Amino acid sequence: MKIAIQEIKARSERVFEKVGLPVADAEIITKVLLETEMRGVFTHGFLRLARYVSCMEAGGIKKDGKITLDFDSPSWAAVNGNDNLGIVVSYKAMQLAIEKAKATGIGVVNVRGSHHFGAAGYYASMCADQGMVGLSMSNGDILVAATGAAEKTIGNNPFSYAFPAGKYGKIVYDIAMSNTSDQKVIRLEKEGKPVPLGWIIDKNGNPTTDASQYMKGGTLLPFGGYKGYGLAMMVEVLAGTMSGAAMTGDVHAWNQNPDVGGNVGHLFVAMDLAKLGDPLAYGARVEKMIDEIKAAKKAEGVEKIYYPGEIEQDKLAKCLADGFVDISDETMAAIAAVEERYGL
Amino acid sequence: MKIAIQEIKARSERVFEKVGLPVADAEIITKVLLETEMRGVFTHGFLRLARYVSCMEAGGIKKDGKITLDFDSPSWAAVNGNDNLGIVVSYKAMQLAIEKAKATGIGVVNVRGSHHFGAAGYYASMCADQGMVGLSMSNGDILVAATGAAEKTIGNNPFSYAFPAGKYGKIVYDIAMSNTSDQKVIRLEKEGKPVPLGWIIDKNGNPTTDASQYMKGGTLLPFGGYKGYGLAMMVEVLAGTMSGAAMTGDVHAWNQNPDVGGNVGHLFVAMDLAKLGDPLAYGARVEKMIDEIKAAKKAEGVEKIYYPGEIEQDKLAKCLADGFVDISDETMAAIAAVEERYGL
Repeated sequence: MKIAIQEIKARSERVFEKVGLPVADAEIITKVLLETEMRGVFTHGFLRLARYVSCMEAGGIKKDGKITLDFDSPSWAAVNGNDNLGIVVSYKAMQLAIEKAKATGIGVVNVRGSHHFGAAGYYASMCADQGMVGLSMSNGDILVAATGAAEKTIGNNPFSYAFPAGKYGKIVYDIAMSNTSDQKVIRLEKEGKPVPLGWIIDKNGNPTTDASQYMKGGTLLPFGGYKGYGLAMMVEVLAGTMSGAAMTGDVHAWNQNPDVGGNVGHLFVAMDLAKLGDPLAYGARVEKMIDEIKAAKKAEGVEKIYYPGEIEQDKLAKCLADGFVDISDETMAAIAAVEERYGL
Repeated sequence: MKIAIQEIKARSERVFEKVGLPVADAEIITKVLLETEMRGVFTHGFLRLARYVSCMEAGGIKKDGKITLDFDSPSWAAVNGNDNLGIVVSYKAMQLAIEKAKATGIGVVNVRGSHHFGAAGYYASMCADQGMVGLSMSNGDILVAATGAAEKTIGNNPFSYAFPAGKYGKIVYDIAMSNTSDQKVIRLEKEGKPVPLGWIIDKNGNPTTDASQYMKGGTLLPFGGYKGYGLAMMVEVLAGTMSGAAMTGDVHAWNQNPDVGGNVGHLFVAMDLAKLGDPLAYGARVEKMIDEIKAAKKAEGVEKIYYPGEIEQDKLAKCLADGFVDISDETMAAIAAVEERYGL
């Protein structure tokens, strides 16, 4: 249903405050969920609100805002989120990376003791808004098969980058490592449809198009075979191994265990393009690159060649122009149930 | 044919010196080509020697060793290779990144004015040898279709990372952005065999299994569809746009134009794990991660689950133990022809 942006913003902030978050943190998580929703990434928007609240109620997510430093230096820090909300921890960690980049050109922040961080693209995008290159990534509970494995071995480890793009706004790339999400496989199973070859393997590790094999011990495959497996490992090491966070099988499935602390690991990087010299030169150059790619001969039936994040940027612009955001009835019902529980 | 390591090393150094490279640079390029060859990546080993020599003779690659700084700061620098050998420029740029990482924890070096840099994995691997995380990447001449395009739009932009891995040695990931190389498609065409769907599109942008369509205006597809296209763009911006190097269609096909300077762009990153605290903790953690992945249930017919670079590491160890490296007859004949031309 269509909800006025100001309305959902106010309601989300009120809920998070009532649950016990500091006001500033309630504003941060609302800002992130709202922008993600407006970008059309509804799987990581307000759909998660009720679940985050459940985890805070069950104690798996803390509300004390105590985020501490394990290590600090001019360009590099390591943060312990101490089981606070992954989105709030990540927002603050990226802010720290941006501050360091403003001072030294480069800011790198490792994070442990965090929780589900939502849409990776939000944090990378914070950098692009400041004229910086941004990278953001997180490990997660195991969902994907390593090449050669017949079971879940490594997380679906989201990875994002963002670049300022002059007249084009921002380039924002935000992917997970499987060819598709488990939700999409389960939906196809319900509809009695097959999945494309390469999406899943059965419990013996054999590729299959039978969607029902997934819930019978099957596993998601990484995109691009061993190339995707290797990227999942890159994120596991940079976000998990380096940070002192939980790794691979020790990262718990947060949405199944609301009372368990996450110890999820992230990595955030900011690089201030202004330090390299005239930022207009970069701006003109990135526009030229996109101009050229967009001008390429198109495949039959293709109207437009997109850069990463362009479709989401267009959706966001439309929401802001309309003043409304489209949120599913189920999500609004779940939010209303939380509000009722808290007497709002 | 099997060649003694010491013999090919001495012959390569002698050739490059005779062509006019400074002794130290002849040693660097030989070291890189030799290790790449021993790792079994023969496409980026001594196969390239004669071609690099041709480019130096034709003037497209300079031999003056003049590598200059566009920008410098404690953790970040930008280098101009001034058309020198890409491998030598890259080796020195990564050495600079490693020095910065030793001092500040993080070293980032952008490069422009470089040339074909060979195997991306070599430079990332230099970091792992020093207990550091390494990233290396380069743009290149356009070879791959952007999602929706019906022609070559973006480079096959190699990307590599390397991590120290305790008892496992090093994790070294080294990929290009297409599902397969153009050489493999051309070979299948010669053999009258089809290519798997997803490797190439024909001149109208339609997916095809007919290998012969590639040379009739077809294009390689990125691995993983839009996810691979987006990674190619990440490398294009980080290595090309940011560095002031040539971009997309302006990067020339070096092996077709030996007299033209490259202006290829790279990015090198080093992060010193020792700065994060006890490096043994990282070492034990990365071993645990690999242990767990290797212990996963294997797919039918699979004997071993590998981490990235493990197969190449095993090949290198075998060469070093034997004292010999296997180099193709064609490559040795091409080297002999260069030696003869120079009266060696």
